[in-house]
Amino acid sequence: MMDTFGNIFRVITWGESHGKAIGCVVDGCPSGLELNRGEIQRELDRRRPGKSIISTERKEADKVEILSGIFEGKTLGTPISMLIKNLDIDSSRYEEIKDLLRPGQAEFTWREKFHFIDWRGGGRASGRETATRVAAGAIAKKLLKRFGIEILAYSKEIAGVKADTDKIDLNNLEKIKRSIESNPVRSPDLKVAKEMEKAILSAKEEKDSVGGIIEAIALGVPVGLGEPVFGKLDADLAKAMMSIPAVKGIEIGNGFELARMKGSRANDPFIIKNGKILTATNNSGGILGGISNGMPIVLRIALKPTASIGIKQKTVDIEKMEETIIEVKGRHDPCIVPRAVPVVESMVALVLADHSMISGFIPRRLD
Amino acid sequence: MMDTFGNIFRVITWGESHGKAIGCVVDGCPSGLELNRGEIQRELDRRRPGKSIISTERKEADKVEILSGIFEGKTLGTPISMLIKNLDIDSSRYEEIKDLLRPGQAEFTWREKFHFIDWRGGGRASGRETATRVAAGAIAKKLLKRFGIEILAYSKEIAGVKADTDKIDLNNLEKIKRSIESNPVRSPDLKVAKEMEKAILSAKEEKDSVGGIIEAIALGVPVGLGEPVFGKLDADLAKAMMSIPAVKGIEIGNGFELARMKGSRANDPFIIKNGKILTATNNSGGILGGISNGMPIVLRIALKPTASIGIKQKTVDIEKMEETIIEVKGRHDPCIVPRAVPVVESMVALVLADHSMISGFIPRRLD
Amino acid sequence: MMDTFGNIFRVITWGESHGKAIGCVVDGCPSGLELNRGEIQRELDRRRPGKSIISTERKEADKVEILSGIFEGKTLGTPISMLIKNLDIDSSRYEEIKDLLRPGQAEFTWREKFHFIDWRGGGRASGRETATRVAAGAIAKKLLKRFGIEILAYSKEIAGVKADTDKIDLNNLEKIKRSIESNPVRSPDLKVAKEMEKAILSAKEEKDSVGGIIEAIALGVPVGLGEPVFGKLDADLAKAMMSIPAVKGIEIGNGFELARMKGSRANDPFIIKNGKILTATNNSGGILGGISNGMPIVLRIALKPTASIGIKQKTVDIEKMEETIIEVKGRHDPCIVPRAVPVVESMVALVLADHSMISGFIPRRLD
Amino acid sequence: MMDTFGNIFRVITWGESHGKAIGCVVDGCPSGLELNRGEIQRELDRRRPGKSIISTERKEADKVEILSGIFEGKTLGTPISMLIKNLDIDSSRYEEIKDLLRPGQAEFTWREKFHFIDWRGGGRASGRETATRVAAGAIAKKLLKRFGIEILAYSKEIAGVKADTDKIDLNNLEKIKRSIESNPVRSPDLKVAKEMEKAILSAKEEKDSVGGIIEAIALGVPVGLGEPVFGKLDADLAKAMMSIPAVKGIEIGNGFELARMKGSRANDPFIIKNGKILTATNNSGGILGGISNGMPIVLRIALKPTASIGIKQKTVDIEKMEETIIEVKGRHDPCIVPRAVPVVESMVALVLADHSMISGFIPRRLD
Repeated sequence: MMDTFGNIFRVITWGESHGKAIGCVVDGCPSGLELNRGEIQRELDRRRPGKSIISTERKEADKVEILSGIFEGKTLGTPISMLIKNLDIDSSRYEEIKDLLRPGQAEFTWREKFHFIDWRGGGRASGRETATRVAAGAIAKKLLKRFGIEILAYSKEIAGVKADTDKIDLNNLEKIKRSIESNPVRSPDLKVAKEMEKAILSAKEEKDSVGGIIEAIALGVPVGLGEPVFGKLDADLAKAMMSIPAVKGIEIGNGFELARMKGSRANDPFIIKNGKILTATNNSGGILGGISNGMPIVLRIALKPTASIGIKQKTVDIEKMEETIIEVKGRHDPCIVPRAVPVVESMVALVLADHSMISGFIPRRLD
Repeated sequence: MMDTFGNIFRVITWGESHGKAIGCVVDGCPSGLELNRGEIQRELDRRRPGKSIISTERKEADKVEILSGIFEGKTLGTPISMLIKNLDIDSSRYEEIKDLLRPGQAEFTWREKFHFIDWRGGGRASGRETATRVAAGAIAKKLLKRFGIEILAYSKEIAGVKADTDKIDLNNLEKIKRSIESNPVRSPDLKVAKEMEKAILSAKEEKDSVGGIIEAIALGVPVGLGEPVFGKLDADLAKAMMSIPAVKGIEIGNGFELARMKGSRANDPFIIKNGKILTATNNSGGILGGISNGMPIVLRIALKPTASIGIKQKTVDIEKMEETIIEVKGRHDPCIVPRAVPVVESMVALVLADHSMISGFIPRRLD
Repeated sequence: MMDTFGNIFRVITWGESHGKAIGCVVDGCPSGLELNRGEIQRELDRRRPGKSIISTERKEADKVEILSGIFEGKTLGTPISMLIKNLDIDSSRYEEIKDLLRPGQAEFTWREKFHFIDWRGGGRASGRETATRVAAGAIAKKLLKRFGIEILAYSKEIAGVKADTDKIDLNNLEKIKRSIESNPVRSPDLKVAKEMEKAILSAKEEKDSVGGIIEAIALGVPVGLGEPVFGKLDADLAKAMMSIPAVKGIEIGNGFELARMKGSRANDPFIIKNGKILTATNNSGGILGGISNGMPIVLRIALKPTASIGIKQKTVDIEKMEETIIEVKGRHDPCIVPRAVPVVESMVALVLADHSMISGFIPRRLD
Repeated sequence: MMDTFGNIFRVITWGESHGKAIGCVVDGCPSGLELNRGEIQRELDRRRPGKSIISTERKEADKVEILSGIFEGKTLGTPISMLIKNLDIDSSRYEEIKDLLRPGQAEFTWREKFHFIDWRGGGRASGRETATRVAAGAIAKKLLKRFGIEILAYSKEIAGVKADTDKIDLNNLEKIKRSIESNPVRSPDLKVAKEMEKAILSAKEEKDSVGGIIEAIALGVPVGLGEPVFGKLDADLAKAMMSIPAVKGIEIGNGFELARMKGSRANDPFIIKNGKILTATNNSGGILGGISNGMPIVLRIALKPTASIGIKQKTVDIEKMEETIIEVKGRHDPCIVPRAVPVVESMVALVLADHSMISGFIPRRLD
């Protein structure tokens, strides 16, 4: 029932994994934004499955069609409807296990809630739904970039293997981005990237799966985004992140570590630099009192390991109401983290685009 | 601008820390719920300042008045307006530092956003605002309890001192609650409670502050609450938690730990017990695919140390636009964690009450 | 920016008149509703242009495709995405007048608001947009019918020619419906239907246009729909009606006439009939205090004459900023009233479906 | 459940007629607006009962208290909470008829909906609730005035007696306002004002009541307010008007008359005047395609006669479930139209303030 996200810059997503198509409608994008299909396709290609040995074997071109809201290369301020056809559908492997509850998956809860579900490929609960978030996010990113806001995300940790991100030079964003996209695990630390990949392949071999942590950074966010006391910027980011499948935790700035610090160390001292007020450190991750403070916004999310694994698992046959064993076949990513990176960026972008418009930082029309 | 929380069971809160009063309006509560002032007062008393040496010295009776929505002891289904007067106001200590940005506090961002703020006692950004959430939460709790849902929260960790919560017997809820309320730090582990208290007092002596982690558990939640893909139960809980002042992280179930587990261990196997489908473990914290699965809902939040500390800190005088040193006097809690416990419970209750009504589990009127 | 209608049963519509397609997404429809494409197509066919000499010559098959939300003939409770391609597009006649403001049309205001519009065929401001409302309304109607609610609308007056509706027998709904559909003006009074048609054709000959009044009746609405004080049923109906292009007035029950009655005659006396409380008369049109009272809901809307007319009109060339004369060519209905009938029914259905779900009368899932 | 109105500039109202108090919270008002209690009180005084022989005898000072959101004479951008105590409460006359359904009143529908109501003085369904709309509206008006928008309303017709409003000189707004306020029926036509008063007093003598029509005009509204296709300015005005108790109809511009005009006469020709595009006539009432066109916004609403009348009426005793006769005593206005004038102005102001902020015409902060 709540497939809409955002207040002014809003998106509704729709579609089942093995239905005819998936798609979304972006409503509230300002008029006059230059936008073409290629820019959206580029982002979708980053999330697309089947590109490397560490991702699912489902092959989807994920070609986006834009059906409305754009005229002569510019947005009209009217809803932008986008559609992606589902092509490589193979529901056979789901048919045989359709009454067996896959552990860690959503069939059980969806089934109890709706009493009737599309059991093919996870239906609407499939990670495939996130492709439409990426399409919407591509528009949000384009809009934000025009106003100097850029978003970056990467695998901070996979299967316990941590990337060293201390030396990331945020002044050279294009270089970091290229570096992240240069390896299949999307790590900015090329040394550990190989190790991460190995951990994923080793899990795949065992028919098991692994999880990880994604870090996202937003640069150029002006002071003043966020609407206390319930529309705080961090509150909306937390909601956005937790709405992504498999996410089980989110922290802003130094997050859980702050719970162990003293105030004298946790507080970021205010300083003046080039006539602007900044903070000397950024423990707060760019948000104070629910409002952006002009420093980079930094957040991290925890993704659980892919629930679909080939290993035999105990479960229940819900039709027969008896305990049994399941072997999930289907086609799955042994680690969803790398492909979730553009999804995280997109959700951050949707939140920032919406708050930029709520606060008046981005106007309703671009001249 | 966004001082409203919830969709059907909704609350709007209002009020500045040193204004005439603070309050809230609860809209959408079903008609026919038995409710009296005492039940709400009892919850407010739990959050009230000035009760022990580890809390602020501000003395507020926090006496709630109910102005509408209740007739002959029952709710009418109309808005319930509640008001708490601000009595013990001492703005003098704020006057002298009103142009100095307190590190870790919201004045800077609020000031940049609104260009004009009530600088007395933090204004609307003060933790005092959370009293109104507790008043609203008391109604949500009462409603949920009638439908078998109970919420429990406690200090899981303070200043790095961890409570052992393994032996908590959730079948004896009243006993745990008494135990938690029996000590000023609200720890369910009476052994470490003393240690936590000591850590807080030691920080206080140093004019410093400490943070911690609160764990919340919701029992009796039926299968089926949560509205994918954007109104997921965990997404709304994350938003609710992150909207609480000082919260910098939130995790559901095993949260960040899950990022390091393999799928074969992270997945909770389904089992049948007494004719009902349950999971053998509860790594997912009671939520699968954004919908409650009938297991206890478990979440943890990280609270940063209180930003207001007496130690001298580097900062900026925003009127003179020059760097300077600040000594925050005011009256503050050296650790906000224990008093935040009822706030966390309240926000969890608001989310669950709203989702219970959205899903139809709780009807619009009680007969 | 606000292309979404409804709270729980919600629809978002999208699309420009001469773009690739138009469509809508219905979110919040209960799961388990039997639904097929044909039922939606049937309603669209009622609104389709080019069916008689009194309507526009644009020929559109208006074939609806359902892309999501339905599986094995039943709704899933997930968003239902529908798409209608634009086929018979002829933008040439718009090109030559694209800088001339068509009197009574929306270009001027849209252009000032968005600074950039799709000038082909009225773009998003075209009446074509209402086809998507009919598609969404078809689902709402199907749902309502399952719960005993039926909606009927017809031309009450066209070009000043009034239908006699006193003898309409609401107990024989199918017969009235057939009678209404049997004539091109959708009048339930077959005698005046011919006269109405003549008035339209005569206006057409003069390259002019006429307006009229549509009356809508909803039967079987239970007592209790409507959410005072701002979500009143009549308030939401008024908004729904006024959102239809060309509508300039709405009245409930005896509407404007009531302003001239005395209270002793306007008040509907309560009576008991078959053990149920009814009112002896229905001046209030089935709504008291913003809540349905179990009597038929009756409303009327005023539609202005079609703005697009062939007669020469004074206007302004907005590029040259000079006064000039316009001759609108394009293809237009000389009277939009008959084709607006299914649109009115659809908007009434959307309001009633939404309120039925808000109040709990219709549940989230149908078993 | 839906006691909130508006999107960005939002108000929630609360309170029962015979409860402790009524009030409202205005959220989303920009920061920096100069505002004092007197300005709000002045508007409330216009709606206050007991001021003339044609209004109810209930005497209420209706003194408003502002509890938050204002500091040093300016708004903070935070919620503005306002409270009006109920003082002159006499519930005795309601007690004896509490099981008798008053014809034309909301008890029946509220009772069926909520199963439990505050029967004293109409409870929340009382017209008294509109006082809080006037308090909120006073803030909206102040804000709009700062941006050049003024709202005017008056009795256009009472008991069938029509005011001649052709000669109203909108260039001398203060004079018209004084003229309207100079007579108890709030007619701008002083000649018919006496007649209207007589008609009201005659109805009062007969223990009967009369209704009428209010016209409202908004001046200075810029081109561009309104959010098609569902947030159209006229759609939101229609909703706002129909949410006012006793309103049964609303028309924009020439409204129902337009249904009988030809297009060639109904269309307002565009002209250029002083370098600005205007329309030569204003049949459309200042709104085209759901967006304001810069001309005065003109609307009219129909108010039914007061439902509470002293004449004996047929009705039902809902406890005994038998037909009976009721004599409503209480204290009531024989004609609500004059006191509804400031309510209409307030609701128009709330819609315009909200749309001014949505469109970016009024910013989030005033410097």
